[in-house]
Amino acid sequence: MADKPLILVTNDDGLTAPGIRTLIKIMNTLGEVVVVAPDSPQSGMGHAITVDATLHVRQEQVDDGPQIEYSTSGTPADCVKLAKHEILKRVPDLCVSGINHGSNSSINVIYSGTMSAAIEAGIEGIPAIGFSLCDYSWEANFKTVEKHVKVISQNVLKHGLPKDVVLNVNFPNVEKIKGIKICRQAKGNWSEVFDKRQNPNGKNYYWLSGKFVNLDKGEDTDEWALKNGFTSVVPVQFDLTAHHCIQNLNSWSLND
Amino acid sequence: MADKPLILVTNDDGLTAPGIRTLIKIMNTLGEVVVVAPDSPQSGMGHAITVDATLHVRQEQVDDGPQIEYSTSGTPADCVKLAKHEILKRVPDLCVSGINHGSNSSINVIYSGTMSAAIEAGIEGIPAIGFSLCDYSWEANFKTVEKHVKVISQNVLKHGLPKDVVLNVNFPNVEKIKGIKICRQAKGNWSEVFDKRQNPNGKNYYWLSGKFVNLDKGEDTDEWALKNGFTSVVPVQFDLTAHHCIQNLNSWSLND
Repeated sequence: MADKPLILVTNDDGLTAPGIRTLIKIMNTLGEVVVVAPDSPQSGMGHAITVDATLHVRQEQVDDGPQIEYSTSGTPADCVKLAKHEILKRVPDLCVSGINHGSNSSINVIYSGTMSAAIEAGIEGIPAIGFSLCDYSWEANFKTVEKHVKVISQNVLKHGLPKDVVLNVNFPNVEKIKGIKICRQAKGNWSEVFDKRQNPNGKNYYWLSGKFVNLDKGEDTDEWALKNGFTSVVPVQFDLTAHHCIQNLNSWSLND
Repeated sequence: MADKPLILVTNDDGLTAPGIRTLIKIMNTLGEVVVVAPDSPQSGMGHAITVDATLHVRQEQVDDGPQIEYSTSGTPADCVKLAKHEILKRVPDLCVSGINHGSNSSINVIYSGTMSAAIEAGIEGIPAIGFSLCDYSWEANFKTVEKHVKVISQNVLKHGLPKDVVLNVNFPNVEKIKGIKICRQAKGNWSEVFDKRQNPNGKNYYWLSGKFVNLDKGEDTDEWALKNGFTSVVPVQFDLTAHHCIQNLNSWSLND
């Protein structure tokens, strides 16, 4: 077993989601697999970590394996921390997160629990990939994406990843994917509409709703790739410094 | 009132935290202030948003004003969305978040609820600043930082900010701050230690613990500035694309 890569699998939809079951099945063909995933759905959790509550870990058996599985009470980022520091005996060669039920392209990378797990692994120095399928339904068809999950994972195992960079991979919701494109994050945002309602006592409450708007006409973006039937791969960094602005800000009179 | 700038104030420690009370007091000298903040502490929430639960908003009166205040059941990012789309009558000229009780320098920007509110405002096109004091105690002394909060906010009101960039401002926990430095995010991470305990029934549980480690010897970083008694200002972007890696990844054999 020593020459088999160790692969950590996690997600934000919980251990029983069809997306992670697909991912586990594929990873079992590439290495020794340990799954550490939330015990309940964690969509929209961003890079949340649990600082004000206790964390629980439980070994689980969902199918006949051969992977080993754990559920935790934490967020996706917590799962990666617990895996690295408490559960795994050695540093994994790869961390894969997903396959998310729903897009994490463009600005969605910021809100994504799937990507926060991949980024947390990257911070810990583990090559990491977040996978998402642009279909929010629980019955999404993951069959079409299996080949691309495998080839991208194999390439990361073979080449590694540039330092402090992880991959954000999104699959279009189409019958036949045209190919894989390396992309930049499209400039887009959510045109928010809160759905305002009244409870039986007449008190107002809100549901967050809204529509994603792509503001980016570029043909090198993840949104363009997905719209045109390609799998998008965006290299993602966690140095958030806008280096190009430092000179400009230095011209301000802050120390007079 | 029409020529007074409209300033949105939020945080992740909740409406009653001494840090936000200080921030409100300062902002009242600069413009018309509306506060929309979580009704409970939200530390470590990263860029979480509430997609699977309802949101509540309540008008509050904490002191004699003149600001108008609301609490919400949401995360810091939710607060900004609710403010922009439901509460405020016009787009604010500035959004300030904090003053956080504790550092958000280096990699902490990723986990920070304070900064996620500022980033959410940036996504919405509002010039935004997150302020944090490197003192986790509720009784932190915010007196020393008031001048810098004001001068940085005045500069943003005057100059605006570069497109798609917000500011991450951290104050050192010292009696007299030496000045303000524009910095980049230091490369550092948390050396995680989980505190493993047993409950009265013998079941294991964990507290996330750990120690921040600065791995960056540069003298242009936020960690260097803070350690040397300066206020750090890091321009932060939410395009996470590692543009410098795209060429490298294009050399992979993904479409063979």
